Amino acid sequence: MGYGDWVHDFVLKGDICYSATRNSLHISEHSFLVCEEGKSAGVFPQVPAAYGHLPQIDYTGKLIIPGLVDLHLHAPQFAFRSLGMDLELLDWLEIHAFPEEAKYRDTVYGLRAYTALVEDLKRGPNTRICLFATVHVPTTLLLMDLLEKSGLVCLVGKVNMDRNSPNALREADAETSAALTREWLDRCGAYKNCRPILTPRFIPSCTDTLMHYLSDLQKQYGLPLQSHLSENQREIAWVRELCPESSCYGDAYTRFGLFGGDVPTIMAHCVWPDATEIALLRSRGVYVAHCPQSNTNLSSGMAPIRRFLDAGISVGLGSDVAGGVHTSIFRAMADAIQVSKLRRFAGGHHEAPLTLEEAFYLGTGGGGAFFGKVGSFAPGYEFDALVIDDANTAPPFALTLRDRLERTVYLSDDRNIIAKYVRGVAISNF
Amino acid sequence: MGYGDWVHDFVLKGDICYSATRNSLHISEHSFLVCEEGKSAGVFPQVPAAYGHLPQIDYTGKLIIPGLVDLHLHAPQFAFRSLGMDLELLDWLEIHAFPEEAKYRDTVYGLRAYTALVEDLKRGPNTRICLFATVHVPTTLLLMDLLEKSGLVCLVGKVNMDRNSPNALREADAETSAALTREWLDRCGAYKNCRPILTPRFIPSCTDTLMHYLSDLQKQYGLPLQSHLSENQREIAWVRELCPESSCYGDAYTRFGLFGGDVPTIMAHCVWPDATEIALLRSRGVYVAHCPQSNTNLSSGMAPIRRFLDAGISVGLGSDVAGGVHTSIFRAMADAIQVSKLRRFAGGHHEAPLTLEEAFYLGTGGGGAFFGKVGSFAPGYEFDALVIDDANTAPPFALTLRDRLERTVYLSDDRNIIAKYVRGVAISNF
Repeated sequence: MGYGDWVHDFVLKGDICYSATRNSLHISEHSFLVCEEGKSAGVFPQVPAAYGHLPQIDYTGKLIIPGLVDLHLHAPQFAFRSLGMDLELLDWLEIHAFPEEAKYRDTVYGLRAYTALVEDLKRGPNTRICLFATVHVPTTLLLMDLLEKSGLVCLVGKVNMDRNSPNALREADAETSAALTREWLDRCGAYKNCRPILTPRFIPSCTDTLMHYLSDLQKQYGLPLQSHLSENQREIAWVRELCPESSCYGDAYTRFGLFGGDVPTIMAHCVWPDATEIALLRSRGVYVAHCPQSNTNLSSGMAPIRRFLDAGISVGLGSDVAGGVHTSIFRAMADAIQVSKLRRFAGGHHEAPLTLEEAFYLGTGGGGAFFGKVGSFAPGYEFDALVIDDANTAPPFALTLRDRLERTVYLSDDRNIIAKYVRGVAISNF
Repeated sequence: MGYGDWVHDFVLKGDICYSATRNSLHISEHSFLVCEEGKSAGVFPQVPAAYGHLPQIDYTGKLIIPGLVDLHLHAPQFAFRSLGMDLELLDWLEIHAFPEEAKYRDTVYGLRAYTALVEDLKRGPNTRICLFATVHVPTTLLLMDLLEKSGLVCLVGKVNMDRNSPNALREADAETSAALTREWLDRCGAYKNCRPILTPRFIPSCTDTLMHYLSDLQKQYGLPLQSHLSENQREIAWVRELCPESSCYGDAYTRFGLFGGDVPTIMAHCVWPDATEIALLRSRGVYVAHCPQSNTNLSSGMAPIRRFLDAGISVGLGSDVAGGVHTSIFRAMADAIQVSKLRRFAGGHHEAPLTLEEAFYLGTGGGGAFFGKVGSFAPGYEFDALVIDDANTAPPFALTLRDRLERTVYLSDDRNIIAKYVRGVAISNF
């Protein structure tokens, strides 16, 4: 079900918008977007003769933008999103996240819960997603089955955790965790859209021995990596106790060769990096997954995104379900702008807030770059596209395409999405 | 259309929840809520014999809560909501709000725009709303016609502004503004659900002469009043220049007898009150309309709601469309909680964030008190109720009713509302 049922070469007609640069838009009303072999061949005012034979789909008056990219989502937390929002990170993990994740030992439970998640993701605006599963191999594979069938392109991680976690969730020891990870990796071979990503939960959950094993696995399988960094002040103090030899939290990963460099790496949050850590994020080419709603809900703080951008660090957006409660990266764009405005009242006076253009870039090309040429309609980019019908919010005056994009970011929901393409393939149920 | 088509005495069966106090919930699963002559007769585990003859409506498994109260919305700004969000207050007023409001001189335009607003409000969770219209009498009456037919209970203000506004919007002088206000008030007599509220825009827009006239009108007609207070630091500095004799912004209203006391008064925002102003808000019994999303979007700041509550000041929530972009007060509840968490990073370290219970109270009974006995199902309260079907977000485990309320606040949209009652009358189109 879901994909493979669409020709790969076609033309979409509509009002097309994507990021020209990090802070400007390419806008083409009444134009044509060509998909050739799953990639964009560009946007044209008229269909070029070379593409005249392709089928055209007429979305006149509709907005066509790149699919959105979520760099950070906890799949098993979707079921309890928006519960326990009165807690902070470490208490919330103990009371809500860990007990819920322990349930994914049960594949029947996992199937029910993950099916609801994947249905939500199909309906929403994201086309690329990086997900944490749990420590459990069978339900992690089950999640990958569901995502593979959805047509979305995902990176999914079986989580590693062998310390400082409840018995019901903690893996017996580093050897067990590594062996299960190898078993999982060896069973991921058949997936086309859904690939594995190495996922040590965070420093407090992983012994040094486990981190060494993961480093070996990373090299052997050539895996990308995702984890958490400098989310909460109590967490950072804890890492400092656990790793007195590290110059900063990021350095605690670096010492195992698991922080960028040759390892494509996403670190979620990065709310409280010091200058050392910012320099390290930059020099190691680590991607920051900015999760503004989660950082607000869990009272973590307001990440210094302007400083990251000025430093040339790669930044994308994350829903961080269930620290965040909404899967849509449109919501994360609006949240990112809003939090950046409030930062000035918390000592960030000289940092300009994020603009619409910047937030849109972060949620498309910014995070998309982790997946390769993704998040743009420039020629050669993989063809991920959303078609948005925004007629229900049309005011009694004409809007520019830029205005319509701003309204879509703030006001749209899944009802506005009328078609969704990933790598040139139409996602079903639209 | 819309109201008068429902018997006034009936019983709803379902899972019932309302604020017991400012920070606790009254929760009654599988219970019965009795509506008698447009008022709540209470919540019961079984239908009392005295009400046994009443028709019962079976909402088993659905959540039943009081209707929500929006203390601050600019009706003419709905059309351009979520545009210009990269600006701050005074620039945004000049570039977006004032030019748009000037269009409401045209009743054809006003009818189109206000119809879209009222349709949105009918679909949403709010049952009581305080609205600013514009300076124009005909379109203000047209808005009141539409709201009256909707069945929602509203307070609507023709706006007064005779200085510091563009020519297209500014009234010719204080006498003209007062005469138009009198004309408007004399044409409001027939409305049952929709009543007038005196609405000087804010101190910078109103000359002293106009304020004296409005004070006379207030006394003659016994009107409540709504305006803006201490929203933005540039605005406050401006008021200080305009009113050098006033001890604070609030005092500038008080000197004309237009700040609480015998005048039921709502002041929107109150982001930057000093101790003098907080004492004045309290001593004059002024209601604060807390508009967290607007204060974020327009980079105004984070209002000290915990301090207001500790001081015993009455607080409700406001959408402040179009500083805020969402009309739903569920969204304002979530925003209020979220902003209160971020305040700790802006020097508010000792203020506890708002809890779910508190935010729910602010959006129901807190603002509802401005309308009388509104925002509760305690016996004698006016019967405003929402019936919520939250099955679409049900997880694979049992939720408490309190959990379901938390999810409704964060996750619901208009699709979840399956019935809506105002003063015991069912709103149509559900």
